Amino acid sequence: MMMTKIEMTEAIILAKSEKGASWGSIAEAAGLSEVFVTSACLGMNSLKPDVADKVAAYLGLDASVSTALQAFPMKTWEKAVPTDPLIYRLYEIVGVYGPTMKELIHEKFGDGIMSAIDFSMDIDKEVNPAGDRVVITMNGKFLPYKAW
Amino acid sequence: MMMTKIEMTEAIILAKSEKGASWGSIAEAAGLSEVFVTSACLGMNSLKPDVADKVAAYLGLDASVSTALQAFPMKTWEKAVPTDPLIYRLYEIVGVYGPTMKELIHEKFGDGIMSAIDFSMDIDKEVNPAGDRVVITMNGKFLPYKAW
Amino acid sequence: MMMTKIEMTEAIILAKSEKGASWGSIAEAAGLSEVFVTSACLGMNSLKPDVADKVAAYLGLDASVSTALQAFPMKTWEKAVPTDPLIYRLYEIVGVYGPTMKELIHEKFGDGIMSAIDFSMDIDKEVNPAGDRVVITMNGKFLPYKAW
Amino acid sequence: MMMTKIEMTEAIILAKSEKGASWGSIAEAAGLSEVFVTSACLGMNSLKPDVADKVAAYLGLDASVSTALQAFPMKTWEKAVPTDPLIYRLYEIVGVYGPTMKELIHEKFGDGIMSAIDFSMDIDKEVNPAGDRVVITMNGKFLPYKAW
Amino acid sequence: MMMTKIEMTEAIILAKSEKGASWGSIAEAAGLSEVFVTSACLGMNSLKPDVADKVAAYLGLDASVSTALQAFPMKTWEKAVPTDPLIYRLYEIVGVYGPTMKELIHEKFGDGIMSAIDFSMDIDKEVNPAGDRVVITMNGKFLPYKAW
Amino acid sequence: MMMTKIEMTEAIILAKSEKGASWGSIAEAAGLSEVFVTSACLGMNSLKPDVADKVAAYLGLDASVSTALQAFPMKTWEKAVPTDPLIYRLYEIVGVYGPTMKELIHEKFGDGIMSAIDFSMDIDKEVNPAGDRVVITMNGKFLPYKAW
Amino acid sequence: MMMTKIEMTEAIILAKSEKGASWGSIAEAAGLSEVFVTSACLGMNSLKPDVADKVAAYLGLDASVSTALQAFPMKTWEKAVPTDPLIYRLYEIVGVYGPTMKELIHEKFGDGIMSAIDFSMDIDKEVNPAGDRVVITMNGKFLPYKAW
Amino acid sequence: MMMTKIEMTEAIILAKSEKGASWGSIAEAAGLSEVFVTSACLGMNSLKPDVADKVAAYLGLDASVSTALQAFPMKTWEKAVPTDPLIYRLYEIVGVYGPTMKELIHEKFGDGIMSAIDFSMDIDKEVNPAGDRVVITMNGKFLPYKAW
Amino acid sequence: MMMTKIEMTEAIILAKSEKGASWGSIAEAAGLSEVFVTSACLGMNSLKPDVADKVAAYLGLDASVSTALQAFPMKTWEKAVPTDPLIYRLYEIVGVYGPTMKELIHEKFGDGIMSAIDFSMDIDKEVNPAGDRVVITMNGKFLPYKAW
Amino acid sequence: MMMTKIEMTEAIILAKSEKGASWGSIAEAAGLSEVFVTSACLGMNSLKPDVADKVAAYLGLDASVSTALQAFPMKTWEKAVPTDPLIYRLYEIVGVYGPTMKELIHEKFGDGIMSAIDFSMDIDKEVNPAGDRVVITMNGKFLPYKAW
Repeated sequence: MMMTKIEMTEAIILAKSEKGASWGSIAEAAGLSEVFVTSACLGMNSLKPDVADKVAAYLGLDASVSTALQAFPMKTWEKAVPTDPLIYRLYEIVGVYGPTMKELIHEKFGDGIMSAIDFSMDIDKEVNPAGDRVVITMNGKFLPYKAW
Repeated sequence: MMMTKIEMTEAIILAKSEKGASWGSIAEAAGLSEVFVTSACLGMNSLKPDVADKVAAYLGLDASVSTALQAFPMKTWEKAVPTDPLIYRLYEIVGVYGPTMKELIHEKFGDGIMSAIDFSMDIDKEVNPAGDRVVITMNGKFLPYKAW
Repeated sequence: MMMTKIEMTEAIILAKSEKGASWGSIAEAAGLSEVFVTSACLGMNSLKPDVADKVAAYLGLDASVSTALQAFPMKTWEKAVPTDPLIYRLYEIVGVYGPTMKELIHEKFGDGIMSAIDFSMDIDKEVNPAGDRVVITMNGKFLPYKAW
Repeated sequence: MMMTKIEMTEAIILAKSEKGASWGSIAEAAGLSEVFVTSACLGMNSLKPDVADKVAAYLGLDASVSTALQAFPMKTWEKAVPTDPLIYRLYEIVGVYGPTMKELIHEKFGDGIMSAIDFSMDIDKEVNPAGDRVVITMNGKFLPYKAW
Repeated sequence: MMMTKIEMTEAIILAKSEKGASWGSIAEAAGLSEVFVTSACLGMNSLKPDVADKVAAYLGLDASVSTALQAFPMKTWEKAVPTDPLIYRLYEIVGVYGPTMKELIHEKFGDGIMSAIDFSMDIDKEVNPAGDRVVITMNGKFLPYKAW
Repeated sequence: MMMTKIEMTEAIILAKSEKGASWGSIAEAAGLSEVFVTSACLGMNSLKPDVADKVAAYLGLDASVSTALQAFPMKTWEKAVPTDPLIYRLYEIVGVYGPTMKELIHEKFGDGIMSAIDFSMDIDKEVNPAGDRVVITMNGKFLPYKAW
Repeated sequence: MMMTKIEMTEAIILAKSEKGASWGSIAEAAGLSEVFVTSACLGMNSLKPDVADKVAAYLGLDASVSTALQAFPMKTWEKAVPTDPLIYRLYEIVGVYGPTMKELIHEKFGDGIMSAIDFSMDIDKEVNPAGDRVVITMNGKFLPYKAW
Repeated sequence: MMMTKIEMTEAIILAKSEKGASWGSIAEAAGLSEVFVTSACLGMNSLKPDVADKVAAYLGLDASVSTALQAFPMKTWEKAVPTDPLIYRLYEIVGVYGPTMKELIHEKFGDGIMSAIDFSMDIDKEVNPAGDRVVITMNGKFLPYKAW
Repeated sequence: MMMTKIEMTEAIILAKSEKGASWGSIAEAAGLSEVFVTSACLGMNSLKPDVADKVAAYLGLDASVSTALQAFPMKTWEKAVPTDPLIYRLYEIVGVYGPTMKELIHEKFGDGIMSAIDFSMDIDKEVNPAGDRVVITMNGKFLPYKAW
Repeated sequence: MMMTKIEMTEAIILAKSEKGASWGSIAEAAGLSEVFVTSACLGMNSLKPDVADKVAAYLGLDASVSTALQAFPMKTWEKAVPTDPLIYRLYEIVGVYGPTMKELIHEKFGDGIMSAIDFSMDIDKEVNPAGDRVVITMNGKFLPYKAW
C-alpha cells in the first residue's frame, strides 16, 4: 500500500530525532516558513514535489515520504473540545474573544470573513525579563459576502 | 435587581448605534485597546471603575452600566463547534494548526503553555490590492511546567 | 431596543402572507436572486441599504425592518444533524457524496476548497412527466492552499 | 473472507495511482458519470455486474474487486460535523441555506422533499480569470407528501 | 402574528377534550386515516384546504386553525434518543432490527430504500385473551438507487 | 476462545454467499420467520439449540456456530442517529410519527406501551405498477401501566 | 388551557408544604404505595379517576389537578447523565452492575428482560447503629424473548 | 505484561463454560454473594487474595487470574445511554423514578444520599403463575450532608 | 408559589451587594465555613433552620429566604465541560491528575473512594512576592469497597 | 520507532509490580513529590533528564524509558464525564463547588484564575477512628486578568 500520512509523520519524527534536527532546520531546508512546513509534516497540508523532495532528502528519507508529503490531506481532528492544555487555551481564546473579533472585523472591513485557506501564520519568541512571551501572528485574506 | 451582563451589552449596543459610535471610539474614550474594551462590552472581561465610568459617560449611559462593566464575568459560550462562519474559521485554524503550534512552542520554549490570561490581542487591517487582509496578533506569557 | 433578525423575519413572513407575495416577487423587487434575498429575509445574510429599502417598501414595512436587513448576521443553526426531512436529505448528500466531491475537486483543481463565501446558488424546477425534479446549482470560487 | 468495501477502496486507489488513471478515465471505462463511479469506488454506492467488471478490468484488478463493487453498501459517515475544510464548507452551506432551500422548494413545488435516492450530481470547472470556480449541479426528483 | 403549529396543536387538544372527541372521530370528519390526521394535528404534516376546514369545523375552531393546518411544517424532534417509554421502544426496534430490515429489503427488492415520504401507516388493536396486541402496518414505496 | 457473535455473523454471511442461499431459505430451514432468523444470524437474538443446529447444518457450518447462535446477545448499536439511508428513514418515521403513535395507542388501549420483547415483525413486497412497495407489519403485546 | 403536568406538580408541592403533608400521608389517602403515588404527583405516571380525586381532595385542590393526574404522561428526562448526587449514584449502580444483573437474570430466567412497565418498587429505611441504610426493592415481570 | 481485567474476564467465561459452572456455583466457591462475585469476575470490583484464589482454583485457572481479580479496577462503561434492552430498562427506571426516589429518601432520612460504595445488592427469582418476576434488592448506607 | 433556589440566590446576591457584605462576613454570621455557606447561598447545599435564620437576618431578608435555604437542593450543572476559565482549570486538574490521584489513594488506603458527601473544603490565600497563590484543601472520608 | 508514553507507562507499571516498589519509593528515588512523579509515569507530565534517569535506574529499565519520560506530553483524556467512581467524585466536586470556588477566589484575589500550570498538589492520609480521611491540597498561582 501507499504510505499514509500517519506513517509519514512517524517516519519524519523519528528521523528528526535521530538526526537531531529541529522544525526550524527542516523549514530552512524546505525554503518555507516553520509553521507551514511543520503542519505539512504533521499531515495537515501538502507540499509541492520539489519542496517535498527537499524535506525527505534533508532527513535522509526515501521517495515514499516525499510522495506522502505531496498527497492532498483529509484533515481530521477531534471536534468539540481539545484536551491538551496548550491547545485548549487557543480554543478558549476563540470562545472568549470570538464575538469580539467578529465585531472588530465587521467594523473595519464590512460583512465577510477572514479566510483560513488564503492564510499564513508565524510563531515567535519575545524575550522578556518578567517571563518570555509567545507571539502568534495570523494573516488571512478578507473575503466579503457578495449578493447575487 | 442588578443589571446583568446581557442587559449591559444590549444597552451599550443600542447607545453605540444611536450615537453612531464605533468600537474604536469607545476604546479611545476608555484609553485601552479595541480588543479588550470590546470584549468587556460584550461581557467577557471586567473593567476597572475609572475605565468603566469613562465608557458609560462616553455613551451617555448611567451608573448601572458602569457597575455591570466592573463585575467579574462568568464566561460562557456554546462549547463544541461554533456555527458563525467567521468564528468557525478561527476554530478551524486551531484544529488544523493546533498540533503545529504545540510543536513549535515546545521547540522554542520547552514544556509549557501560552497563557490565555496574561494575554493581549490586536486586530489590524492590511490594505492589499489583491484583497485586504486581516492581521491578528496574539501575545501571551509562556508558562513553563515545573516539577515539585 | 433594535429589531432583532428573528423579529424581522417574523414581520416579513407575516407581511408576505398578508400581501400574497412570493419569495420570487420579493427577489424581483430587490433586483437580486431568489436564494440570496430569501436567505437575507431569513436572517442569514445582510443586504445593502438600497436593496433593504426596496424589500421593506415592497412589503409595506417600516425603516426598522430595512435596518435589520442591513445588520451583519451572527449565523447560527442547530449543529449536528437537522431533523426536517427536506433539510436532512441535503445533509445526507454531503455525508454520502462529500468524499467523492473532495476527490473530484482535487482532481480538477488541485489542493484547496470551494468557497462558501464567494458563492452563489440557484434552485430551479425541471418539469418531467415521470415527476418534476429539483435542480440546485452551486457556484463557488476555488481557493487553493498556498505555502508560505 | 469476502473483500470488504474498505479493502476494495484501498485496492482501487492503489491501482489508480500505479496506473496513473484519473476518476475521469475510470468513469469513462465504466460508461457512467464521474460522481457516481467515484462514489461507488469509495464504497457509498453499488455497481451493476457488467459495470463493476469494466472498472476492475480497466484497473487490472481481479474478480473480488468487482464483487465488492456490486455489494449493497452499509453507508456510514461520522455524524455531526465534518472536519475537512472542503467537506465542512458543504455542510456549512446546508446550515446557512437549508431553510432558504426549504422555503423555495415549497414555493415552487408544494409540501414535499427533493429525493436523495432518485438523484444525480455533476461537478464541473468554470474557468475564470478572477479565479476558477467550482460548479456543482444536483438533480433530484421532487417527492410530494400525500395524505392517506 | 400567524398562529404557530404549537398554538394550533394546543387549540386542537383543548377542543378535542372539551368536545369529548377522539382522534378517530376527527379522522372520520376529515375523511382520511387516523394516523395521518393525528400527525397533521400534532404539527408534523400539512392538510389540503378543504380537509383542514373540515377538521376546524368539526372541532368548532376558527379559520386560523385551518390556516395553520395547511402550513408546510418544519419538522423537528429531539434527535438522539427519545425518553418516553412508548416511543423509546419503537426506537429500540429500529436499533435491534434495522440491519435485519436492510438485509431483507435488499434481498427482496435490490439496492434502495423504503420511502418515508410516499408512505402510509395504520395502527390497529388485535384483541387477544392473553393480552391485546398493537399491530402497526407501514407501507412505503421502494426507491431503487440508479446509476447515472 | 469461544466464537463471538461477530465472528459467527461473518461465518454465516460467507457460507450464505458461497452456497447461494438467501435469508428466506435459511429461515425455511430453521422453521421460523425470516425476520427473526435474520436478526439471530446478525447477532441480535438467540436461537434454541435445535433451531441453531438446523441453521448451522443447512449452511454446512460446525457446532461452534450453533453454540454462538444460542448465546444470549448483548445487543449494541450506535445510539443517536443511524447514517445508512435505509435505516435512517425508519428512524425518521419514529421521529415524525412517534407522538402520533403514542396518541393513538393511548386512545385505543389506555396508558401503557407496545412491547418490543413480546413482539414479531414481517416484511413483505407488494407488487405495484407505479413502483413496488415495502410492507412492514409489527405486532407487539400491549403492556398497561398498573398502580401498586 | 388545560393544566399541564408541570403546573400540577407545582400545585401539589405547594399544597403539601402548606398542609404539612408527607408523601406517605398522600399515598395513604390514595390507598396505593408511596413510590407510585409520588411518581404520579411528579408527573411520571397516571392515576385512575377515583384515586386522582382522593389525592386532590386530601390536598384541598380542585378538579383540574385531578384531571391532570389522570392524563397519560409524556415521560421526559435529561438523557445521558444525571447531575444530582443522589440520582447519579443510582445511575452509577446501573453502569457498574448492569452487566452483572444481565448475567444473573439470564442465568436464572433465560434470554429476556425485567419489565419496567409491569413493575413495582418500594423504598424502606433500615435502622442501623453504624448508620441507617436505604433499602430499595424492585419487582418486575420477566419477559422472555420468543421466536416467531 | 500483566493480565488485564478484560483478559481475565475472557478466561473466566471460557472456563465457566467448559466446566459447566454457573455464577451461583462460583459464588458458592468464593463464599460471597452472586452479585458481588459476578461483578468482580466481570472486572468491576476487586477480590481479597484468599477469595480470588478460591475462584481461580474452582475454575482451574492459574495464579495470573487470581492476581487480576485482586487488582483495583478502573471502572469504565459507555456513559450516556445503554443499548442492551435489559440494561436499558434499568436505566429507564432511574430516569422515570429518580426524582421519586430522591423525594422519598429525603422524606425518610433528610438531606443526603444512598451510598453506591457501602452497598450490596441481591437478585432473586419469584415464581409466579402469571409469569415469573425478577426481584432486585439494593441496600446502601445513607450518607447525610454535613455542614462545616 | 414557594421561593425557588434561583430566586433565593438572586435575593442574597442583591442584599450582599447593597449591604456591602462579603461571603466571609456571611459565613461568620452563620458560624460555619466560607465554602459551605457560599455553596448553600448558591443553592448547592441546605442549611439547618437556625443557621438559615441567621443568614437571612444578617442580610435583612425575610423568612422565605430562610425557608429556601433549608430546602434540600436538586443539584444541577452543565455536565460535560465548563467554559468559565477559572472553573475549567479545576476541571483540567481532574483530567490531568485524576488517574494519579486514583493510584495514590489506592496505594495509601486500598480499593475505595474519597467521599464527596462526608467532605469539607477550604480556600486560602498564600501571600507570595512572586505572585499570591490559591490554596485549596479538600478533606473527604475514605469509603472502602466491601465484599458481601 | 520511539517508545510511546503508553508503552512507557506499561513498562513502569510492570517493573513497579515485579520489584514491589510503590509510587512513594519511586518519588523518593526521583527526589520529587509523589503526585508529580506519578503523573509523569502515567504520561501526563515530563521529567528533566537527570530525574528521568533516576526513575529508570531505580526500576531497572533502560534508556528508552528515560527518553520517553522526558518527552513533552500531548495530554488527552476522555472529555465530558469520567466513569470511575473515584475520579467521578472529584468531577462532582468541581460541579457542585465550582461556582463557590469562583466566588471566594474573586472575593479574596480579584478577577483572575488559579493556574493549573504553575501548580502543585499533595495527597495525604489523615488517620481517624471514625474512618480515615483523604486530604488533597492544591496550590496554584493566582493569575489576574489585566487590561491592555
